[in-house]
Amino acid sequence: MDEAVEFDGKEIRLLDQRFLPHENKIVRCRNEKETADAIKTMVVRGAPAIGVTAAYGMAIAKNPNEAAIKLKSARPTAVDLANAIEYMLSEIKKGTDAKQAAIMWHEKIRECTKKICEHGASLLKNGNKVLLHCNAGPLATGGYGTSLGAVIEAGKTKNIMVYVDETRPRFQGALTAHELKKVGIPHKVIPDSAAGSALRNLKINSVMVGADRIVRNGDFANKIGTYPLSVLAKENLVPFYVLAPFSTIDFSTESGEQIKIEERDEEEVLMVNSHRIYEKGTQVYNPSFDVTPARYVTAYITEHGIHKNISELMKLHKRE
Amino acid sequence: MDEAVEFDGKEIRLLDQRFLPHENKIVRCRNEKETADAIKTMVVRGAPAIGVTAAYGMAIAKNPNEAAIKLKSARPTAVDLANAIEYMLSEIKKGTDAKQAAIMWHEKIRECTKKICEHGASLLKNGNKVLLHCNAGPLATGGYGTSLGAVIEAGKTKNIMVYVDETRPRFQGALTAHELKKVGIPHKVIPDSAAGSALRNLKINSVMVGADRIVRNGDFANKIGTYPLSVLAKENLVPFYVLAPFSTIDFSTESGEQIKIEERDEEEVLMVNSHRIYEKGTQVYNPSFDVTPARYVTAYITEHGIHKNISELMKLHKRE
Repeated sequence: MDEAVEFDGKEIRLLDQRFLPHENKIVRCRNEKETADAIKTMVVRGAPAIGVTAAYGMAIAKNPNEAAIKLKSARPTAVDLANAIEYMLSEIKKGTDAKQAAIMWHEKIRECTKKICEHGASLLKNGNKVLLHCNAGPLATGGYGTSLGAVIEAGKTKNIMVYVDETRPRFQGALTAHELKKVGIPHKVIPDSAAGSALRNLKINSVMVGADRIVRNGDFANKIGTYPLSVLAKENLVPFYVLAPFSTIDFSTESGEQIKIEERDEEEVLMVNSHRIYEKGTQVYNPSFDVTPARYVTAYITEHGIHKNISELMKLHKRE
Repeated sequence: MDEAVEFDGKEIRLLDQRFLPHENKIVRCRNEKETADAIKTMVVRGAPAIGVTAAYGMAIAKNPNEAAIKLKSARPTAVDLANAIEYMLSEIKKGTDAKQAAIMWHEKIRECTKKICEHGASLLKNGNKVLLHCNAGPLATGGYGTSLGAVIEAGKTKNIMVYVDETRPRFQGALTAHELKKVGIPHKVIPDSAAGSALRNLKINSVMVGADRIVRNGDFANKIGTYPLSVLAKENLVPFYVLAPFSTIDFSTESGEQIKIEERDEEEVLMVNSHRIYEKGTQVYNPSFDVTPARYVTAYITEHGIHKNISELMKLHKRE
């Protein structure tokens, strides 16, 4: 498989991200239930890739309204999922062929992420060091990626060194390292707790992260660990960039406090693969995302360009 | 075994902390080489426990001067190790029986940590929530502990809820959870990257950490991830306490920038037990400690009491 999400008109094929980088397994979804399960169990992850998968899930569903409910509840935080489903419902209502509509959504994500990568890459200079959190490359988007995509784009013409947060509990840093290795960009994995030392001691030029939901006041939700990074970046005067499709902005939500944060299963922390780290019965606090206040963001990068603050994005929203 | 480090006059018995909380294995050291190896491979860990082990290592060594060099180089960051060895060399020179001298050092650590725990516990109120990093309880000290010891002491008479950083790469949080479970204090383990969310959202009353080396200007080295915690605590107006024996203060070093930080093996990050997380050949940045600037510290707690700033400790030093 070349892409994280593929569709042949009948079934969705997903590169199972739970087994990467060690094994290339493929999961096939033939109906909305299998699709929702694949999203819930993180076979596919990354907000845009989840959206693309859900669009295809809607395309193969017998009853689109029921499928919409099932798919929407699979992961509550990412706005792309809801956006993709709303788009599909509206296209189906208009009479557009559902499969064609889903293919269009995927194509839109590809184009949009390509532009994000180009704008993001323009922020990086030859010899720069970048710190990345989680995984926001081709695998996570079903397109070109956002933060990792920008680094891959910059790496085509510039020397870039990347520090990769391992991103407990699910080690998405292993996926980022895998995608960087594929394109030959030098990188080092770091424990999440070493990001402070890295920012303080290693002369890092920028932190680049993705976003699962950006709200009206500029606060945004992203993978757990993003908020601490933003505080540490500001403390060490390192620019902190948020890269995401314009569709990630949820103009109907006022501030970060209103974002519902998904808490995931305790076992995700207690076990690493089949190895038990903690004693049975140990309790866990395992929020999947955190909310970063707008004041820590140097700029938002969308397909429309580089925006110093949320009000610039608001103007674009009103124009749309 | 009741304690992390035991000595019967001939051999040192160490509770192998690499296998806890799952297995109770004991490692026996019969000479200085075995002792240095046990320190290096982290059979025993935690600055005061390492110091106690090294003192016993000196007591069973044939050639104390050679043993001093071997033992000192086993872990470069903790000052207790060097202190214990200097003490032993000086006692041996004075003609004190080496075994008696080592037993005295251990006893001194027990008394000292008991006082630290009592002072630390006085900072905690009934119903408080505390965030801990790494493991600084009885296991880590060969005594009563420092930050975790204070929580255990407070837990005898007050309701305390503890959030435990898992502390990658070695998951010392599992040891802290294990020691809290033993005494029945409620706790939740959190991924290190969730500490930001915990401090922002869970109304935590204080962060308590240990220290491997405190220097003249009040900067201190402790387990990787301590510096980010200190910044996040300040940002969220949560008091940040450093608990350590007075002997942890290295009055010969001016500032944190001069502290030599140990970088540990890449495999420590790349593998979790026998399970490979990252592809072979992946590079890693793995500093074992970080340095927290004095400006983030609310108070230092030693056996002498609660000190708002380093100058109070300086006065004690001059008086000694």
